[in-house]
Amino acid sequence: MGGITGSVLETVLGALPAMRPGEVWLAGAGPGDPALLTLQALAGLRQAELVVHDALIDPRILALASGALVPAGKRGGQPAAHQGDINDELIRLARTGARVLRLKGGDPFVFGRGMDEVAALAAAGIAFRIVPGVTAGLAGLTAALIPATARGVNRALLLATGHGADGAADALDWAAVARLGQPVVLYMGLARIGAIADALVAGGMPATTPAAAIASATLPAQRVLVSTLGALAAEIAASELAAPVIVVIGEIVRLRAELLALMPAITAELAWQPG
Amino acid sequence: MGGITGSVLETVLGALPAMRPGEVWLAGAGPGDPALLTLQALAGLRQAELVVHDALIDPRILALASGALVPAGKRGGQPAAHQGDINDELIRLARTGARVLRLKGGDPFVFGRGMDEVAALAAAGIAFRIVPGVTAGLAGLTAALIPATARGVNRALLLATGHGADGAADALDWAAVARLGQPVVLYMGLARIGAIADALVAGGMPATTPAAAIASATLPAQRVLVSTLGALAAEIAASELAAPVIVVIGEIVRLRAELLALMPAITAELAWQPG
Repeated sequence: MGGITGSVLETVLGALPAMRPGEVWLAGAGPGDPALLTLQALAGLRQAELVVHDALIDPRILALASGALVPAGKRGGQPAAHQGDINDELIRLARTGARVLRLKGGDPFVFGRGMDEVAALAAAGIAFRIVPGVTAGLAGLTAALIPATARGVNRALLLATGHGADGAADALDWAAVARLGQPVVLYMGLARIGAIADALVAGGMPATTPAAAIASATLPAQRVLVSTLGALAAEIAASELAAPVIVVIGEIVRLRAELLALMPAITAELAWQPG
Repeated sequence: MGGITGSVLETVLGALPAMRPGEVWLAGAGPGDPALLTLQALAGLRQAELVVHDALIDPRILALASGALVPAGKRGGQPAAHQGDINDELIRLARTGARVLRLKGGDPFVFGRGMDEVAALAAAGIAFRIVPGVTAGLAGLTAALIPATARGVNRALLLATGHGADGAADALDWAAVARLGQPVVLYMGLARIGAIADALVAGGMPATTPAAAIASATLPAQRVLVSTLGALAAEIAASELAAPVIVVIGEIVRLRAELLALMPAITAELAWQPG
Protein backbone atom coordinates (compact mmCIF):
# COMPACT_ATOMS: atom_id res chain seq x y z
CA MET A 1 0.00 0.00 0.00
CA GLY A 2 1.00 3.54 -0.58
CA GLY A 3 1.74 4.58 2.97
CA ILE A 4 -0.52 7.62 3.07
CA THR A 5 -3.23 7.35 5.66
CA GLY A 6 -6.40 9.36 5.47
CA SER A 7 -5.47 11.30 8.59
CA VAL A 8 -2.07 12.30 7.21
CA LEU A 9 -3.68 13.47 4.01
CA GLU A 10 -6.38 15.32 5.95
CA THR A 11 -3.72 17.26 7.81
CA VAL A 12 -1.68 18.04 4.70
CA LEU A 13 -4.64 19.06 2.57
CA GLY A 14 -6.13 21.04 5.43
CA ALA A 15 -3.13 23.36 5.38
CA LEU A 16 -3.66 24.22 1.69
CA PRO A 17 -5.68 27.21 0.50
CA ALA A 18 -9.43 26.61 0.50
CA MET A 19 -11.62 27.05 -2.56
CA ARG A 20 -14.14 29.82 -2.08
CA PRO A 21 -17.67 30.11 -3.50
CA GLY A 22 -17.67 31.68 -6.96
CA GLU A 23 -13.98 30.93 -7.44
CA VAL A 24 -12.51 28.97 -10.36
CA TRP A 25 -9.38 26.90 -10.00
CA LEU A 26 -7.69 26.12 -13.29
CA ALA A 27 -5.73 22.98 -12.51
CA GLY A 28 -3.53 20.54 -14.36
CA ALA A 29 -4.38 16.87 -13.87
CA GLY A 30 -0.90 15.78 -14.92
CA PRO A 31 0.01 13.29 -17.64
CA GLY A 32 -2.50 10.57 -16.74
CA ASP A 33 -1.31 8.47 -13.80
CA PRO A 34 -3.35 9.56 -10.76
CA ALA A 35 -0.19 9.20 -8.66
CA LEU A 36 1.12 12.30 -10.44
CA LEU A 37 -1.73 14.56 -9.32
CA THR A 38 -0.54 17.41 -7.14
CA LEU A 39 -1.88 17.82 -3.63
CA GLN A 40 -3.42 21.14 -4.67
CA ALA A 41 -5.28 19.55 -7.58
CA LEU A 42 -6.57 16.84 -5.28
CA ALA A 43 -7.74 19.51 -2.82
CA GLY A 44 -9.60 21.14 -5.71
CA LEU A 45 -11.25 17.86 -6.68
CA ARG A 46 -12.42 17.34 -3.11
CA GLN A 47 -13.79 20.88 -2.63
CA ALA A 48 -15.36 21.79 -5.96
CA GLU A 49 -19.11 21.50 -6.42
CA LEU A 50 -18.50 21.41 -10.18
CA VAL A 51 -15.57 19.87 -12.07
CA VAL A 52 -15.42 21.08 -15.67
CA HIS A 53 -13.05 18.62 -17.30
CA ASP A 54 -11.43 17.85 -20.62
CA ALA A 55 -12.39 14.68 -22.46
CA LEU A 56 -9.10 12.86 -21.92
CA ILE A 57 -8.83 13.03 -18.13
CA ASP A 58 -8.35 9.55 -16.68
CA PRO A 59 -11.52 8.12 -15.09
CA ARG A 60 -9.60 7.26 -11.91
CA ILE A 61 -8.86 10.96 -11.48
CA LEU A 62 -12.45 12.01 -12.18
CA ALA A 63 -13.59 9.45 -9.61
CA LEU A 64 -11.83 11.55 -6.94
CA ALA A 65 -14.26 14.43 -7.46
CA SER A 66 -16.71 15.14 -4.67
CA GLY A 67 -18.96 17.29 -6.85
CA ALA A 68 -20.63 16.97 -10.23
CA LEU A 69 -18.66 16.26 -13.40
CA VAL A 70 -19.26 18.63 -16.32
CA PRO A 71 -17.60 17.71 -19.64
CA ALA A 72 -16.14 20.96 -21.01
CA GLY A 73 -17.91 22.75 -23.83
CA LYS A 74 -20.49 20.11 -24.60
CA ARG A 75 -23.58 22.17 -23.79
CA GLY A 76 -24.58 22.70 -27.40
CA GLY A 77 -24.19 19.05 -28.28
CA GLN A 78 -21.24 19.79 -30.54
CA PRO A 79 -18.78 16.96 -31.17
CA ALA A 80 -15.82 19.19 -30.26
CA ALA A 81 -15.59 21.85 -27.60
CA HIS A 82 -15.15 25.47 -28.67
CA GLN A 83 -12.90 27.59 -26.48
CA GLY A 84 -15.34 30.50 -26.37
CA ASP A 85 -18.09 28.19 -25.14
CA ILE A 86 -15.84 26.85 -22.38
CA ASN A 87 -14.90 30.36 -21.27
CA ASP A 88 -18.58 31.40 -21.18
CA GLU A 89 -19.52 28.28 -19.27
CA LEU A 90 -16.84 28.82 -16.60
CA ILE A 91 -17.99 32.40 -16.07
CA ARG A 92 -21.65 31.38 -15.92
CA LEU A 93 -21.01 28.61 -13.41
CA ALA A 94 -18.81 30.78 -11.21
CA ARG A 95 -21.53 33.46 -11.13
CA THR A 96 -23.95 30.95 -9.62
CA GLY A 97 -21.66 31.01 -6.58
CA ALA A 98 -20.40 27.48 -7.10
CA ARG A 99 -16.86 26.40 -6.37
CA VAL A 100 -15.57 25.40 -9.81
CA LEU A 101 -12.57 23.26 -10.70
CA ARG A 102 -11.52 23.52 -14.34
CA LEU A 103 -9.44 20.38 -14.84
CA LYS A 104 -7.16 20.10 -17.86
CA GLY A 105 -4.68 17.43 -18.89
CA GLY A 106 -1.01 18.01 -18.10
CA ASP A 107 -0.25 21.61 -17.15
CA PRO A 108 -2.85 24.26 -18.05
CA PHE A 109 -0.24 26.69 -19.39
CA VAL A 110 1.71 24.21 -21.55
CA PHE A 111 -0.12 24.04 -24.88
CA GLY A 112 -3.37 23.87 -22.95
CA ARG A 113 -5.07 27.17 -23.80
CA GLY A 114 -5.02 28.02 -20.11
CA MET A 115 -4.20 31.63 -20.95
CA ASP A 116 -7.44 31.98 -22.95
CA GLU A 117 -9.49 30.83 -19.98
CA VAL A 118 -7.63 32.89 -17.41
CA ALA A 119 -7.91 36.05 -19.52
CA ALA A 120 -11.66 35.49 -19.91
CA LEU A 121 -12.10 34.92 -16.17
CA ALA A 122 -10.03 37.98 -15.31
CA ALA A 123 -11.96 40.17 -17.73
CA ALA A 124 -15.22 38.97 -16.14
CA GLY A 125 -13.97 39.74 -12.65
CA ILE A 126 -14.02 36.09 -11.56
CA ALA A 127 -11.50 35.15 -8.88
CA PHE A 128 -9.26 32.33 -10.01
CA ARG A 129 -6.28 30.28 -9.00
CA ILE A 130 -3.91 28.48 -11.36
CA VAL A 131 -2.62 25.09 -10.21
CA PRO A 132 0.35 23.85 -12.26
CA GLY A 133 0.44 20.17 -13.17
CA VAL A 134 3.11 17.73 -14.24
CA THR A 135 3.34 18.19 -18.00
CA ALA A 136 3.07 15.12 -20.21
CA GLY A 137 6.00 16.18 -22.37
CA LEU A 138 8.39 15.75 -19.46
CA ALA A 139 6.79 12.96 -17.40
CA GLY A 140 6.04 11.02 -20.57
CA LEU A 141 9.75 10.90 -21.32
CA THR A 142 10.51 9.73 -17.79
CA ALA A 143 7.88 7.02 -18.08
CA ALA A 144 9.69 5.82 -21.21
CA LEU A 145 13.05 5.92 -19.38
CA ILE A 146 14.26 8.80 -21.53
CA PRO A 147 15.81 11.58 -19.43
CA ALA A 148 14.70 15.03 -20.54
CA THR A 149 18.21 16.25 -19.87
CA ALA A 150 21.49 14.42 -19.32
CA ARG A 151 24.90 15.86 -18.57
CA GLY A 152 27.17 15.74 -21.62
CA VAL A 153 24.21 15.10 -23.93
CA ASN A 154 22.06 18.23 -23.98
CA ARG A 155 21.99 21.68 -22.44
CA ALA A 156 18.43 22.52 -23.46
CA LEU A 157 15.12 20.96 -24.42
CA LEU A 158 12.57 22.42 -26.80
CA LEU A 159 8.90 21.84 -26.00
CA ALA A 160 6.88 22.40 -29.17
CA THR A 161 3.42 21.77 -30.54
CA GLY A 162 2.92 19.69 -33.65
CA HIS A 163 -0.10 21.74 -34.69
CA GLY A 164 0.25 24.21 -37.55
CA ALA A 165 3.37 22.71 -39.08
CA ASP A 166 2.38 23.18 -42.70
CA GLY A 167 2.43 26.86 -43.50
CA ALA A 168 0.46 28.64 -40.79
CA ALA A 169 1.67 32.23 -40.48
CA ASP A 170 2.93 31.63 -36.97
CA ALA A 171 4.41 28.18 -37.65
CA LEU A 172 7.64 27.21 -35.98
CA ASP A 173 10.87 27.62 -37.99
CA TRP A 174 11.88 23.95 -38.10
CA ALA A 175 15.15 24.76 -39.88
CA ALA A 176 16.10 26.94 -36.92
CA VAL A 177 15.15 24.07 -34.60
CA ALA A 178 17.45 21.77 -36.60
CA ARG A 179 20.33 24.25 -36.35
CA LEU A 180 19.91 24.49 -32.60
CA GLY A 181 20.81 20.82 -32.31
CA GLN A 182 18.97 20.20 -29.02
CA PRO A 183 16.29 17.58 -28.31
CA VAL A 184 12.70 18.37 -29.28
CA VAL A 185 9.52 17.20 -27.53
CA LEU A 186 6.39 17.42 -29.65
CA TYR A 187 2.94 17.67 -28.12
CA MET A 188 0.06 16.68 -30.40
CA GLY A 189 2.57 15.73 -33.07
CA LEU A 190 0.94 12.53 -34.30
CA ALA A 191 -0.88 13.97 -37.31
CA ARG A 192 2.05 16.02 -38.62
CA ILE A 193 5.13 14.05 -37.65
CA GLY A 194 5.91 13.29 -41.31
CA ALA A 195 5.99 16.94 -42.37
CA ILE A 196 7.87 17.99 -39.24
CA ALA A 197 10.51 15.26 -39.65
CA ASP A 198 10.98 16.23 -43.30
CA ALA A 199 11.44 19.86 -42.31
CA LEU A 200 13.96 18.99 -39.61
CA VAL A 201 15.99 16.81 -42.01
CA ALA A 202 15.83 19.52 -44.68
CA GLY A 203 17.15 21.92 -42.04
CA GLY A 204 20.16 19.74 -41.38
CA MET A 205 19.15 17.45 -38.51
CA PRO A 206 20.54 13.99 -39.34
CA ALA A 207 17.88 11.46 -40.33
CA THR A 208 19.70 9.02 -38.06
CA THR A 209 18.89 11.09 -34.95
CA PRO A 210 17.20 8.80 -32.41
CA ALA A 211 13.48 9.45 -31.99
CA ALA A 212 10.62 7.90 -30.07
CA ALA A 213 6.85 8.06 -29.85
CA ILE A 214 5.19 7.49 -26.46
CA ALA A 215 1.46 6.74 -26.52
CA SER A 216 -0.73 7.02 -23.40
CA ALA A 217 2.29 8.02 -21.36
CA THR A 218 2.26 6.99 -17.67
CA LEU A 219 -0.97 4.95 -18.12
CA PRO A 220 -1.26 1.16 -18.08
CA ALA A 221 -1.79 1.32 -21.86
CA GLN A 222 1.54 3.11 -22.40
CA ARG A 223 3.44 2.04 -25.51
CA VAL A 224 6.89 3.22 -26.60
CA LEU A 225 8.12 3.09 -30.19
CA VAL A 226 11.84 3.80 -30.66
CA SER A 227 13.05 4.73 -34.12
CA THR A 228 14.99 7.44 -35.92
CA LEU A 229 13.99 10.85 -37.19
CA GLY A 230 13.99 9.55 -40.76
CA ALA A 231 11.93 6.45 -40.08
CA LEU A 232 9.62 7.50 -37.25
CA ALA A 233 6.63 8.68 -39.31
CA ALA A 234 6.50 5.46 -41.34
CA GLU A 235 6.91 3.31 -38.26
CA ILE A 236 4.13 5.15 -36.45
CA ALA A 237 1.87 4.73 -39.48
CA ALA A 238 2.60 1.00 -39.52
CA SER A 239 1.96 0.70 -35.78
CA GLU A 240 -1.22 0.76 -33.76
CA LEU A 241 -0.19 3.84 -31.78
CA ALA A 242 -3.11 6.16 -31.13
CA ALA A 243 -3.36 9.63 -29.59
CA PRO A 244 -2.39 10.98 -27.14
CA VAL A 245 1.21 10.63 -28.30
CA ILE A 246 4.34 12.50 -27.22
CA VAL A 247 7.18 12.49 -29.77
CA VAL A 248 10.79 13.07 -28.73
CA ILE A 249 13.70 13.58 -31.10
CA GLY A 250 17.33 13.74 -29.99
CA GLU A 251 20.32 11.91 -28.56
CA ILE A 252 18.63 11.63 -25.15
CA VAL A 253 16.46 8.86 -26.68
CA ARG A 254 19.57 6.69 -26.90
CA LEU A 255 19.86 6.63 -23.09
CA ARG A 256 16.72 4.50 -22.79
CA ALA A 257 18.49 1.53 -24.36
CA GLU A 258 21.61 2.17 -22.27
CA LEU A 259 19.59 2.13 -19.06
CA LEU A 260 17.62 -0.95 -20.05
CA ALA A 261 20.86 -2.76 -20.91
CA LEU A 262 22.18 -2.03 -17.41
CA MET A 263 19.11 -3.37 -15.66
CA PRO A 264 17.62 -6.49 -17.22
CA ALA A 265 16.79 -7.94 -13.84
CA ILE A 266 14.96 -4.95 -12.43
CA THR A 267 12.85 -3.70 -15.32
CA ALA A 268 9.72 -4.82 -13.50
CA GLU A 269 10.52 -2.42 -10.69
CA LEU A 270 9.95 0.64 -12.83
CA ALA A 271 7.14 3.06 -12.27
CA TRP A 272 5.86 2.22 -15.71
CA GLN A 273 6.54 -0.91 -17.69
CA PRO A 274 8.57 0.07 -20.76
CA GLY A 275 6.49 -0.71 -23.84
CA MET B 1 -11.99 20.59 3.64
CA GLY B 2 -14.13 18.05 1.90
CA GLY B 3 -14.51 14.49 3.03
CA ILE B 4 -11.09 13.34 2.04
CA THR B 5 -11.25 10.02 3.84
CA GLY B 6 -13.87 8.82 1.39
CA SER B 7 -13.62 5.32 0.02
CA VAL B 8 -12.69 6.44 -3.49
CA LEU B 9 -9.72 8.32 -2.16
CA GLU B 10 -8.70 5.40 0.04
CA THR B 11 -8.77 3.28 -3.09
CA VAL B 12 -6.47 5.65 -4.95
CA LEU B 13 -4.05 5.90 -2.08
CA GLY B 14 -4.10 2.14 -1.70
CA ALA B 15 -3.30 1.74 -5.38
CA LEU B 16 -0.09 3.75 -5.09
CA PRO B 17 2.95 1.49 -5.41
CA ALA B 18 4.58 0.40 -2.19
CA MET B 19 8.23 1.14 -1.55
CA ARG B 20 10.14 -2.07 -0.95
CA PRO B 21 13.17 -2.64 1.26
CA GLY B 22 16.39 -1.88 -0.60
CA GLU B 23 14.59 0.19 -3.21
CA VAL B 24 15.41 3.80 -4.12
CA TRP B 25 12.77 6.22 -5.33
CA LEU B 26 14.22 9.20 -7.16
CA ALA B 27 11.49 11.80 -6.74
CA GLY B 28 10.98 15.42 -7.65
CA ALA B 29 9.78 17.66 -4.83
CA GLY B 30 8.43 20.27 -7.24
CA PRO B 31 9.25 23.98 -7.35
CA GLY B 32 8.92 24.69 -3.62
CA ASP B 33 5.27 25.09 -2.59
CA PRO B 34 4.31 21.87 -0.73
CA ALA B 35 0.91 22.05 -2.47
CA LEU B 36 2.69 21.10 -5.69
CA LEU B 37 4.02 17.80 -4.37
CA THR B 38 2.63 14.80 -6.24
CA LEU B 39 0.72 12.06 -4.44
CA GLN B 40 3.51 9.66 -5.39
CA ALA B 41 6.19 11.86 -3.84
CA LEU B 42 4.10 12.15 -0.68
CA ALA B 43 3.75 8.37 -0.63
CA GLY B 44 7.52 8.13 -0.83
CA LEU B 45 7.98 10.58 2.03
CA ARG B 46 5.60 8.54 4.19
CA GLN B 47 7.22 5.17 3.44
CA ALA B 48 10.95 5.85 3.29
CA GLU B 49 13.15 5.07 6.28
CA LEU B 50 15.74 7.43 4.82
CA VAL B 51 15.16 10.64 2.85
CA VAL B 52 18.32 11.77 1.05
CA HIS B 53 17.53 15.35 0.12
CA ASP B 54 19.03 18.33 -1.68
CA ALA B 55 19.88 21.43 0.33
CA LEU B 56 17.13 23.61 -1.12
CA ILE B 57 14.07 21.46 -0.36
CA ASP B 58 11.48 23.46 1.56
CA PRO B 59 11.38 22.59 5.29
CA ARG B 60 7.58 22.16 5.12
CA ILE B 61 8.13 19.34 2.61
CA LEU B 62 10.86 17.70 4.68
CA ALA B 63 8.53 17.86 7.67
CA LEU B 64 6.26 15.36 5.87
CA ALA B 65 8.93 12.65 6.05
CA SER B 66 8.28 9.70 8.34
CA GLY B 67 11.91 8.56 8.33
CA ALA B 68 15.31 10.11 8.92
CA LEU B 69 16.53 13.09 6.89
CA VAL B 70 19.95 12.72 5.25
CA PRO B 71 21.39 15.82 3.54
CA ALA B 72 22.83 14.60 0.23
CA GLY B 73 26.56 14.24 -0.18
CA LYS B 74 27.61 15.83 3.08
CA ARG B 75 29.35 12.79 4.57
CA GLY B 76 32.86 14.09 4.06
CA GLY B 77 32.04 17.48 5.52
CA GLN B 78 32.56 19.19 2.17
CA PRO B 79 30.78 22.49 1.62
CA ALA B 80 29.29 21.25 -1.69
CA ALA B 81 27.99 17.80 -2.57
CA HIS B 82 29.87 15.79 -5.18
CA GLN B 83 27.76 13.72 -7.53
CA GLY B 84 29.91 10.62 -7.18
CA ASP B 85 29.59 10.78 -3.39
CA ILE B 86 25.81 11.01 -3.65
CA ASN B 87 25.66 8.04 -6.02
CA ASP B 88 27.85 5.97 -3.68
CA GLU B 89 25.76 6.96 -0.68
CA LEU B 90 22.49 5.95 -2.35
CA ILE B 91 23.92 2.54 -3.26
CA ARG B 92 25.34 2.02 0.21
CA LEU B 93 22.07 2.95 1.93
CA ALA B 94 19.97 0.79 -0.38
CA ARG B 95 22.25 -2.18 0.30
CA THR B 96 21.46 -1.92 4.01
CA GLY B 97 17.92 -2.91 3.02
CA ALA B 98 16.46 0.48 3.84
CA ARG B 99 13.66 2.07 1.84
CA VAL B 100 15.32 5.18 0.41
CA LEU B 101 13.71 8.30 -1.01
CA ARG B 102 16.11 10.48 -2.98
CA LEU B 103 14.34 13.83 -3.04
CA LYS B 104 15.45 16.49 -5.51
CA GLY B 105 14.05 19.93 -6.28
CA GLY B 106 11.74 20.29 -9.28
CA ASP B 107 11.83 17.27 -11.60
CA PRO B 108 14.79 14.89 -11.25
CA PHE B 109 15.31 14.67 -15.03
CA VAL B 110 15.15 18.40 -15.80
CA PHE B 111 18.67 19.76 -15.20
CA GLY B 112 18.77 17.75 -12.00
CA ARG B 113 21.45 15.13 -12.70
CA GLY B 114 18.83 12.45 -12.19
CA MET B 115 20.31 10.45 -15.05
CA ASP B 116 23.67 10.21 -13.26
CA GLU B 117 22.01 8.77 -10.18
CA VAL B 118 19.75 6.38 -12.07
CA ALA B 119 22.62 5.06 -14.16
CA ALA B 120 24.69 4.46 -11.04
CA LEU B 121 21.81 2.65 -9.31
CA ALA B 122 21.11 0.54 -12.40
CA ALA B 123 24.76 -0.41 -12.76
CA ALA B 124 24.81 -1.47 -9.10
CA GLY B 125 21.69 -3.58 -9.53
CA ILE B 126 19.61 -1.44 -7.17
CA ALA B 127 15.87 -1.38 -7.90
CA PHE B 128 14.60 2.14 -8.42
CA ARG B 129 11.55 4.13 -9.36
CA ILE B 130 11.55 7.61 -10.89
CA VAL B 131 8.81 9.98 -9.73
CA PRO B 132 8.45 13.06 -11.94
CA GLY B 133 7.86 16.40 -10.25
CA VAL B 134 6.49 19.76 -11.29
CA THR B 135 9.49 21.57 -12.76
CA ALA B 136 10.35 25.05 -11.47
CA GLY B 137 10.87 26.43 -14.98
CA LEU B 138 7.19 25.96 -15.79
CA ALA B 139 5.46 26.40 -12.42
CA GLY B 140 7.69 29.37 -11.65
CA LEU B 141 6.33 31.14 -14.69
CA THR B 142 2.76 30.35 -13.67
CA ALA B 143 3.43 31.68 -10.19
CA ALA B 144 4.55 34.93 -11.81
CA LEU B 145 1.39 34.99 -13.98
CA ILE B 146 3.45 34.39 -17.14
CA PRO B 147 1.92 31.64 -19.29
CA ALA B 148 4.55 29.24 -20.65
CA THR B 149 2.60 29.14 -23.90
CA ALA B 150 -0.15 31.34 -25.29
CA ARG B 151 -2.01 31.00 -28.55
CA GLY B 152 -0.83 33.53 -31.11
CA VAL B 153 2.31 34.30 -29.10
CA ASN B 154 4.52 31.20 -29.15
CA ARG B 155 4.52 27.68 -30.56
CA ALA B 156 7.45 26.40 -28.53
CA LEU B 157 9.38 27.00 -25.32
CA LEU B 158 13.07 26.34 -24.80
CA LEU B 159 14.14 25.09 -21.39
CA ALA B 160 17.88 25.73 -21.00
CA THR B 161 20.52 25.79 -18.32
CA GLY B 162 22.53 28.92 -17.66
CA HIS B 163 25.59 26.93 -16.72
CA GLY B 164 28.51 26.74 -19.13
CA ALA B 165 27.61 29.76 -21.21
CA ASP B 166 31.10 31.08 -21.67
CA GLY B 167 32.97 28.74 -23.93
CA ALA B 168 32.46 25.20 -22.63
CA ALA B 169 32.78 22.72 -25.46
CA ASP B 170 29.17 21.67 -25.15
CA ALA B 171 27.77 25.19 -24.62
CA LEU B 172 24.46 26.09 -26.17
CA ASP B 173 24.52 27.97 -29.48
CA TRP B 174 22.83 31.17 -28.28
CA ALA B 175 22.81 32.64 -31.78
CA ALA B 176 20.72 29.67 -32.90
CA VAL B 177 18.42 30.27 -29.93
CA ALA B 178 18.02 33.89 -31.02
CA ARG B 179 17.19 32.83 -34.59
CA LEU B 180 14.52 30.45 -33.34
CA GLY B 181 12.59 33.39 -31.91
CA GLN B 182 10.74 31.43 -29.22
CA PRO B 183 10.69 32.12 -25.46
CA VAL B 184 13.57 30.83 -23.37
CA VAL B 185 13.45 29.69 -19.74
CA LEU B 186 16.83 29.62 -17.99
CA TYR B 187 17.47 27.42 -14.99
CA MET B 188 20.43 28.46 -12.83
CA GLY B 189 20.91 31.51 -15.02
CA LEU B 190 21.64 34.07 -12.32
CA ALA B 191 25.43 34.02 -12.53
CA ARG B 192 25.64 34.16 -16.33
CA ILE B 193 22.62 36.20 -17.37
CA GLY B 194 24.84 39.04 -18.59
CA ALA B 195 26.86 36.87 -20.97
CA ILE B 196 23.78 34.99 -22.16
CA ALA B 197 21.81 38.18 -22.83
CA ASP B 198 24.76 39.62 -24.75
CA ALA B 199 24.98 36.45 -26.85
CA LEU B 200 21.25 36.50 -27.60
CA VAL B 201 21.35 40.16 -28.65
CA ALA B 202 24.45 39.51 -30.77
CA GLY B 203 22.51 36.69 -32.40
CA GLY B 204 19.69 39.00 -33.37
CA MET B 205 17.18 38.83 -30.50
CA PRO B 206 15.96 42.39 -29.91
CA ALA B 207 17.26 43.96 -26.70
CA THR B 208 13.71 45.18 -26.14
CA THR B 209 12.38 41.62 -25.78
CA PRO B 210 10.47 41.38 -22.48
CA ALA B 211 12.28 39.39 -19.81
CA ALA B 212 11.74 38.53 -16.17
CA ALA B 213 13.57 37.00 -13.23
CA ILE B 214 11.58 35.01 -10.68
CA ALA B 215 13.29 34.35 -7.35
CA SER B 216 12.06 31.69 -4.90
CA ALA B 217 9.23 30.82 -7.26
CA THR B 218 5.99 29.56 -5.63
CA LEU B 219 7.32 30.26 -2.12
CA PRO B 220 6.16 33.03 0.23
CA ALA B 221 9.46 34.80 -0.49
CA GLN B 222 8.78 34.87 -4.25
CA ARG B 223 9.90 38.05 -6.01
CA VAL B 224 9.36 38.92 -9.68
CA LEU B 225 11.50 41.42 -11.57
CA VAL B 226 10.18 42.40 -15.01
CA SER B 227 12.59 44.01 -17.44
CA THR B 228 13.92 43.61 -20.97
CA LEU B 229 16.60 41.37 -22.42
CA GLY B 230 18.96 44.32 -22.71
CA ALA B 231 18.44 45.62 -19.18
CA LEU B 232 17.78 42.46 -17.15
CA ALA B 233 21.35 41.70 -16.04
CA ALA B 234 21.92 45.22 -14.73
CA GLU B 235 18.55 45.30 -13.00
CA ILE B 236 19.20 41.96 -11.33
CA ALA B 237 22.61 43.18 -10.18
CA ALA B 238 20.99 46.30 -8.71
CA SER B 239 18.28 44.25 -6.99
CA GLU B 240 18.35 42.00 -3.97
CA LEU B 241 17.30 38.91 -5.92
CA ALA B 242 19.08 35.78 -4.71
CA ALA B 243 19.17 32.21 -6.01
CA PRO B 244 17.20 30.17 -6.84
CA VAL B 245 16.14 32.30 -9.80
CA ILE B 246 14.30 31.34 -12.98
CA VAL B 247 14.84 33.71 -15.92
CA VAL B 248 12.35 33.92 -18.79
CA ILE B 249 12.88 35.84 -22.01
CA GLY B 250 10.18 36.33 -24.63
CA GLU B 251 6.90 37.95 -25.57
CA ILE B 252 4.99 35.72 -23.13
CA VAL B 253 6.38 37.94 -20.34
CA ARG B 254 4.20 40.78 -21.63
CA LEU B 255 1.05 38.81 -20.75
CA ARG B 256 1.71 39.20 -17.04
CA ALA B 257 1.05 42.94 -17.22
CA GLU B 258 -1.99 42.36 -19.42
CA LEU B 259 -3.48 39.94 -16.92
CA LEU B 260 -2.71 42.16 -13.94
CA ALA B 261 -4.35 45.11 -15.69
CA LEU B 262 -7.53 43.07 -16.13
CA MET B 263 -7.76 42.06 -12.53
CA PRO B 264 -6.81 44.78 -10.05
CA ALA B 265 -9.55 43.74 -7.66
CA ILE B 266 -8.71 40.05 -7.48
CA THR B 267 -4.93 39.98 -7.31
CA ALA B 268 -5.09 38.75 -3.74
CA GLU B 269 -6.93 35.64 -4.90
CA LEU B 270 -3.93 34.28 -6.77
CA ALA B 271 -2.08 31.20 -5.73
CA TRP B 272 0.99 33.30 -5.27
CA GLN B 273 1.16 37.01 -4.62
CA PRO B 274 2.81 38.66 -7.62
CA GLY B 275 6.00 40.29 -6.39
